[in-house]
Amino acid sequence: MAAAQVWSVDPRTGKPREEVAAEATAEEIDRVVRTAHAVRDALADRAVRAAFLRTAAALLEETASHVVEAADAETALGPGRLNGELARTAFQLRSFADIVDEGAFLDIVINHADDSRTPPWPDLRRIKVPLGVVAVYAASNFPLAFSVPGGDTASALAAGCPVVVKAHPDHPATAELCASVLRRAAAQSGLPQDVVQLVHGFEAGVELIRHPLVSAAGFTGSVRGGRALFDAAAARPHPIPFHGELGSLNPVVVTAAAAAERGEELGAGLAASMTLGVGQFCTKPGLVLVPAGADGDVLVKELTHGVSEVEAGVLLDHRMREAFVAGVAERAALDGVEAPVTPGAGGEHTVGAGFLAVDAARLAREGAHDLLLEECFGPVTVVARYSDDAEITAVLSRLPGNLTATLHLSRAESAGEGHGAALLAALTPLAGRVLVGGWPTGVAVAPAQQHGGPYPATTSTSTSVGGTAIERWLRPVAYQTTPEALLPPELRDANPLGLPRVVDGRREAGVRAEGN
Amino acid sequence: MAAAQVWSVDPRTGKPREEVAAEATAEEIDRVVRTAHAVRDALADRAVRAAFLRTAAALLEETASHVVEAADAETALGPGRLNGELARTAFQLRSFADIVDEGAFLDIVINHADDSRTPPWPDLRRIKVPLGVVAVYAASNFPLAFSVPGGDTASALAAGCPVVVKAHPDHPATAELCASVLRRAAAQSGLPQDVVQLVHGFEAGVELIRHPLVSAAGFTGSVRGGRALFDAAAARPHPIPFHGELGSLNPVVVTAAAAAERGEELGAGLAASMTLGVGQFCTKPGLVLVPAGADGDVLVKELTHGVSEVEAGVLLDHRMREAFVAGVAERAALDGVEAPVTPGAGGEHTVGAGFLAVDAARLAREGAHDLLLEECFGPVTVVARYSDDAEITAVLSRLPGNLTATLHLSRAESAGEGHGAALLAALTPLAGRVLVGGWPTGVAVAPAQQHGGPYPATTSTSTSVGGTAIERWLRPVAYQTTPEALLPPELRDANPLGLPRVVDGRREAGVRAEGN
Repeated sequence: MAAAQVWSVDPRTGKPREEVAAEATAEEIDRVVRTAHAVRDALADRAVRAAFLRTAAALLEETASHVVEAADAETALGPGRLNGELARTAFQLRSFADIVDEGAFLDIVINHADDSRTPPWPDLRRIKVPLGVVAVYAASNFPLAFSVPGGDTASALAAGCPVVVKAHPDHPATAELCASVLRRAAAQSGLPQDVVQLVHGFEAGVELIRHPLVSAAGFTGSVRGGRALFDAAAARPHPIPFHGELGSLNPVVVTAAAAAERGEELGAGLAASMTLGVGQFCTKPGLVLVPAGADGDVLVKELTHGVSEVEAGVLLDHRMREAFVAGVAERAALDGVEAPVTPGAGGEHTVGAGFLAVDAARLAREGAHDLLLEECFGPVTVVARYSDDAEITAVLSRLPGNLTATLHLSRAESAGEGHGAALLAALTPLAGRVLVGGWPTGVAVAPAQQHGGPYPATTSTSTSVGGTAIERWLRPVAYQTTPEALLPPELRDANPLGLPRVVDGRREAGVRAEGN
Repeated sequence: MAAAQVWSVDPRTGKPREEVAAEATAEEIDRVVRTAHAVRDALADRAVRAAFLRTAAALLEETASHVVEAADAETALGPGRLNGELARTAFQLRSFADIVDEGAFLDIVINHADDSRTPPWPDLRRIKVPLGVVAVYAASNFPLAFSVPGGDTASALAAGCPVVVKAHPDHPATAELCASVLRRAAAQSGLPQDVVQLVHGFEAGVELIRHPLVSAAGFTGSVRGGRALFDAAAARPHPIPFHGELGSLNPVVVTAAAAAERGEELGAGLAASMTLGVGQFCTKPGLVLVPAGADGDVLVKELTHGVSEVEAGVLLDHRMREAFVAGVAERAALDGVEAPVTPGAGGEHTVGAGFLAVDAARLAREGAHDLLLEECFGPVTVVARYSDDAEITAVLSRLPGNLTATLHLSRAESAGEGHGAALLAALTPLAGRVLVGGWPTGVAVAPAQQHGGPYPATTSTSTSVGGTAIERWLRPVAYQTTPEALLPPELRDANPLGLPRVVDGRREAGVRAEGN
């Protein structure tokens, strides 16, 4: 039986662009994973890994015009956004190269033997080692930053793990192009190209998660797809870590005082954030608690104005367009739900942005309106009008886990007056990133970043953006009473590699700046 | 329907000692978990948590004679061992108090806003927060150190999580006594007693892992029981982390040169390690690769002598005794397996230590002898005689994950000659702790410790012993553009709590010694 063909499709027309590849069969997955496993030791040298990541960043930039052209043709995200995403992706690769060089991620702790203890302590030296082959499931909405050359791949390679990426069907040509860039970078760095491999196909993705030589997985996508893979990872004879980012409502709370102080600004900011990238950000604000009454009306009026001015846009694929149109219709049909700007079908291939408004009281108790507490992918948000703080906390207490939660306060509240601290405390359990002011779309690639929150935002307690994302692909090993001659150089007394370490309770600074 | 009674049983006679409690019903589990959840904020203050852990250590020592008496009556482990275990448990509680005080576990990373970046970085401040109620499943073989007052409980409380312990049925009276000590310590520290609660019963344990307000679980026990709970944790609507230590073979490799150099010493050391605590350590060496020929014979002869001298011992319960007797008989009946000292039934309530010997070649390929690669709980080990290094690596490649792996080298090999490094490299992927020399039984409570290895040794990449065990009960939260007045004090610019932090890439030392 011939393997199914993989086509690149133009979402602006719904027409196939080109045949890109074939879906991988079970035999091919087995071969790909075995090849990745066989070359894993090539990634043992940190200096080579760092050079590889930097070369990948440089080659990606050199190939930028081709990559952006392909990605735009397949995703309709536009060259402006895609050039920015490419720059961010290259920066991310270089950030992980810095992290590899610096070496704090190895979490080295050394305890010399201590006979004064009861019982005596033997010499113990702890370091983190790579888990093995990592499966990466690319996202639809970030064809670069959360796909083949994205954060999961970069952090796994930085950890020393070969990567097999399962391409997203919305941008297979971009995936092929990026995989060839990474493989070329590997070769130029003296590594086997097979430290990065690419496969296509839904069934191939399921085979991949089940393969005995796959050691961990990273995923960005829907709750349905992510949960199915999470379940498969957990059901293996030998379960593996599955770090999945599945879905997030990203609640926003606007206090009455904030609305009174800057309702217009907030309405305009919300309109921009919820329609960014045609509403296809994982961090899109999907539920906004706005005070009832005149101050809140100002915000809603400006939101109405802002959203009305947004042109119809093209979603990543036609299946998403259908899901969006059906999803907003179902939500708009609920009792007491109004659509100041009706979201839904735009032209034949586009969707129009809009938003829904509802009394917060309807969300405070279980019922049909729970649908409004589920993510709806695309340019729509739900504005829930509340009458008091009790209604805010009642709604918050019903929310699932989120990537982000945002609080807008007045100047006085920001200075510590009133209920600001209480509201912040109510938002913290809900999310991995908590903002006071600003909007959640836009995730800085910074060491302090946390892009991951309680389920279903994430299936683990990890982050997929920022330096600590590397932790996902490592496990600690402690060497006991191991002679100096046999110890990895990272663990020798003289610290020949100049790594940051904690030795007998004292921190040894590394030779490179820490925490970059 | 009346709840089933929980009896304390004397394993030396098989007779019930006393009725201790009743098994918790589903309603009771719900009430217990809700109570624990309701008091979680009481643990927010680090200073109070540290004081609580130190008070618990002191009260445990004050109550030592009662606790050891109860534990000995229920487990037959003997007062010598149990007094040592109690001292270790108190030390562990104090170690976590030190870790709480020091604060490095909060993993604080601060990036001030940086407009020079493209796109600009917002102010981001990352800290770790407790997950919520933790379920702890106590172990049979360590009634203190891996049970009610043990490492899972201590690390979870240190992280700021209330704990519900599911008692092990082999020592319910000890569990009740220890729970009352911990609850008394809580009260003396100004905390609600319900930050620690105890439940009994198999079904209660299943209810517990399924409860929506349970946020994570720690487990030490069998593959069967642990896997069932792991599966239940993964199958929840909202899956939770399950850190389980399930089983380990703890392979040992003795090189020909090591056997030639000190075969007698190694034989005697192995006899002592495999029979320690009647062979009921998670780290018992269960498979020992010994060279064929005269040098290996010296080791085996001394092992034979050492094991023959071990008196019959009492296992933790009669079910284990039956499993041991049946397990060793099934193994001994395999083709080509000899029993130089026959393990099995001793007296009516005891078992005799022994060991089995087999050609390593029989373990190098799939077949009936795979049974010898499964842990057999109790005083037995398998000595596999190999003819060359290829046979060693062939057997190692067939092993599941382990807590420990041990290598015995000659002096010259330890100095770097020959195959020492290659063998060490072959053992590292198999385990969380790799020893060169010494024996794996005995797990130092030290910062560099790693008590956790690839599945089935552990269901996650974490450790259950040592300071980093606290990481299991935390998740990161990043605060974005949050005004100083609303930030937790840990994240304020002035660092009023004197915590170790990484700020804009520079490490701020804390006011307390790091890495204890």
